[in-house]
Amino acid sequence: MKIVVLKFGGTSVGTVERIKRVAAIIIRFINKKYKVIVVSSAMSGVTNDLIKKSKELSTDFNSAEYDALVSSGEQMSCALIAGRLNHLGYKSRSWLAWQIPILTDGNHRSARINAIKTNNLKKYLNEGGVPIVSGFQGINSNKRITTLGRGGSDASAIMLAKYFKAKKCVIYTDVVGVMTTDPRVYKKAKKIKIISYEEMLEMASLGSKVMQSSSVQDARLNRIDIDVKSSFIKKDGTLITKRKNITNNKIITGISSTKNDAKITLVGIKDKPGIAASIFKPLSENNINVDMVVQNISADGKETDLTFTIKLEDLNKTQKLVKLNKIIKYKNLIIDKNVSKVSIIGVGMITTPGVTFRMFQALSKKNINILVISTSEIKISVLISKKYVKKAVSTLHKEFNLDSQDEH
Amino acid sequence: MKIVVLKFGGTSVGTVERIKRVAAIIIRFINKKYKVIVVSSAMSGVTNDLIKKSKELSTDFNSAEYDALVSSGEQMSCALIAGRLNHLGYKSRSWLAWQIPILTDGNHRSARINAIKTNNLKKYLNEGGVPIVSGFQGINSNKRITTLGRGGSDASAIMLAKYFKAKKCVIYTDVVGVMTTDPRVYKKAKKIKIISYEEMLEMASLGSKVMQSSSVQDARLNRIDIDVKSSFIKKDGTLITKRKNITNNKIITGISSTKNDAKITLVGIKDKPGIAASIFKPLSENNINVDMVVQNISADGKETDLTFTIKLEDLNKTQKLVKLNKIIKYKNLIIDKNVSKVSIIGVGMITTPGVTFRMFQALSKKNINILVISTSEIKISVLISKKYVKKAVSTLHKEFNLDSQDEH
Repeated sequence: MKIVVLKFGGTSVGTVERIKRVAAIIIRFINKKYKVIVVSSAMSGVTNDLIKKSKELSTDFNSAEYDALVSSGEQMSCALIAGRLNHLGYKSRSWLAWQIPILTDGNHRSARINAIKTNNLKKYLNEGGVPIVSGFQGINSNKRITTLGRGGSDASAIMLAKYFKAKKCVIYTDVVGVMTTDPRVYKKAKKIKIISYEEMLEMASLGSKVMQSSSVQDARLNRIDIDVKSSFIKKDGTLITKRKNITNNKIITGISSTKNDAKITLVGIKDKPGIAASIFKPLSENNINVDMVVQNISADGKETDLTFTIKLEDLNKTQKLVKLNKIIKYKNLIIDKNVSKVSIIGVGMITTPGVTFRMFQALSKKNINILVISTSEIKISVLISKKYVKKAVSTLHKEFNLDSQDEH
Repeated sequence: MKIVVLKFGGTSVGTVERIKRVAAIIIRFINKKYKVIVVSSAMSGVTNDLIKKSKELSTDFNSAEYDALVSSGEQMSCALIAGRLNHLGYKSRSWLAWQIPILTDGNHRSARINAIKTNNLKKYLNEGGVPIVSGFQGINSNKRITTLGRGGSDASAIMLAKYFKAKKCVIYTDVVGVMTTDPRVYKKAKKIKIISYEEMLEMASLGSKVMQSSSVQDARLNRIDIDVKSSFIKKDGTLITKRKNITNNKIITGISSTKNDAKITLVGIKDKPGIAASIFKPLSENNINVDMVVQNISADGKETDLTFTIKLEDLNKTQKLVKLNKIIKYKNLIIDKNVSKVSIIGVGMITTPGVTFRMFQALSKKNINILVISTSEIKISVLISKKYVKKAVSTLHKEFNLDSQDEH
């Protein structure tokens, strides 16, 4: 059985006309002899309207009721899609999370799929039906509706692909695919034709909003190919797949940049073992994510400077926690709110020496000063002054030949 | 345990502000030491918007998907009410039909409640919770969502009152109660303070749109008092109860009038046994409801005229069926589209002689010609020319002292 999971995002089902287009896309797959499982988000706007109402009723709306409330949006869109397919002569029905069921654990508003009971859907697929599954939701052990948090419909689609051993999962959205860099930062950004899970994870965690990292990670663990494409234009999107399927010889696949970072430097702290841990432990306990870290040993080897970056939104909390910390002593605390992280990402750099040098040289030629550096196997990140972000991205995009081709 | 069922209609929960008011009403009952079960309709407008979308996708939208679609409206309103009560410090949660469950049989779009499993709700009530139950819906034996048809939330409320042996059921709506007659027909119409199930059934079936007949009938069979009142003003509404609770000595409780009736007369049909049946059988088989019937025997006893009334919307279909009917022969078929039925209703007429005479005399004095008469134990109906409806209603309203009191 050749199974495909098709997931449609909120804008793709945002109007009656768009739902008609979605039905036509589904039929194309049926005609290609696929067994199709559809996952739909709520019509765009619906969920936001419901959230607005909940906020008007309570500044701290009950989480279980929030989930009951917002999950109604997917119920609508799924029924509308199934009704449309019926109208066109295809056997189809909506499957709500509780009817399948899709079981979750964890908290309301941010549950995780624990298991999908496949019997009901399998039977339905074998009868030739096209199930339209409500994304973004499941039920917990108390039979309460639980939602999966931001990007939850992607998670639903990937997990269905996993449980049904689907050949692939197509994520229909309102963008043409994953871009080499944010087009708002550099307008010559190109669509990436093929990208590895690992690169995508680095892109996603660094600000690319096409898919949530957890869904990419689930796809990676289960070896599910993901096609990200637009439901509005009939054109290839981006294939997210395993590394060995990537045969081109690009060094760099994409460039990401952040906004809203902050840099904190503790000047003149005693250099003794465990000092970094004693600073970062209380931050971690307060859900503050420390990103880049660098420690400079001073000339006499007794004192050290510690620099780290956090999200700007965590700055006040971080300052308080550092000041309350009685274990560490420092001479000065310097804050820089005007920093950004620019990263180049690519599995190609593993086999290509000198990428770091090329990156630093290109930035240096443009007089862009590097404040902090961090690297991983497939990524090199530099912290720079926020005002140089656009210049840095365009420089690196050209340096690594990302705007020299029509499309990647 | 003193249980009350409160049902809120679509306009009562139509905005966030109104939902706040609904929560306040619920709290008044909690403070009076009631165990409260709430039933809510969808926010007004939501269901119509969904139906509109379904029609744009299909002229014959699949019924099961229609039910999945429109039932989402109650899920929203229930979650919003429960969230509001939580915000105010009360233990409350939404209970969707499938979570209770409420079991139905029959068709999609017009299912009937077959059983309510009370265990889950009973446990929750005993824990001090206020359940907010989605009206208008249940699930069938295939675990598909089924809706109860027009007025379905009332049915949900009455059945919950039955299964939980509630002291009473309060139907909150956008009118002040049941009126002595349609205020658009006669503006001196008064609110009825108390009315028997039987009178209410006659009022409802004759055009009063406050409650569906099937719900009144369910209440009657289970001896559940129904309070119909406005959620917008704090004022007594109408109590629908058993006859013996009614102690006033009014002869007539209310007057109803219809629009869109049609009268058909078959002139000169052979007068033999079974002739009426042979005419009405095909109508009944085509869901055409024949209302008033009168048969005049001609002078020679061989031929007869048969007159009956139907809804105007069924006229074309009825004419076709009568003309196709090979069993009956008639000389002429006369149609009158400009007729209305005016009825006076009251249990008081059982013990008061001469009501019929008073009615006919009052109409006669105003030169209103009576075309057809039909009577039941507690109702007298006359068919008159449509142009006299307002005059007839006002005449009868005065004749039976319905506008002489402030409120009934």
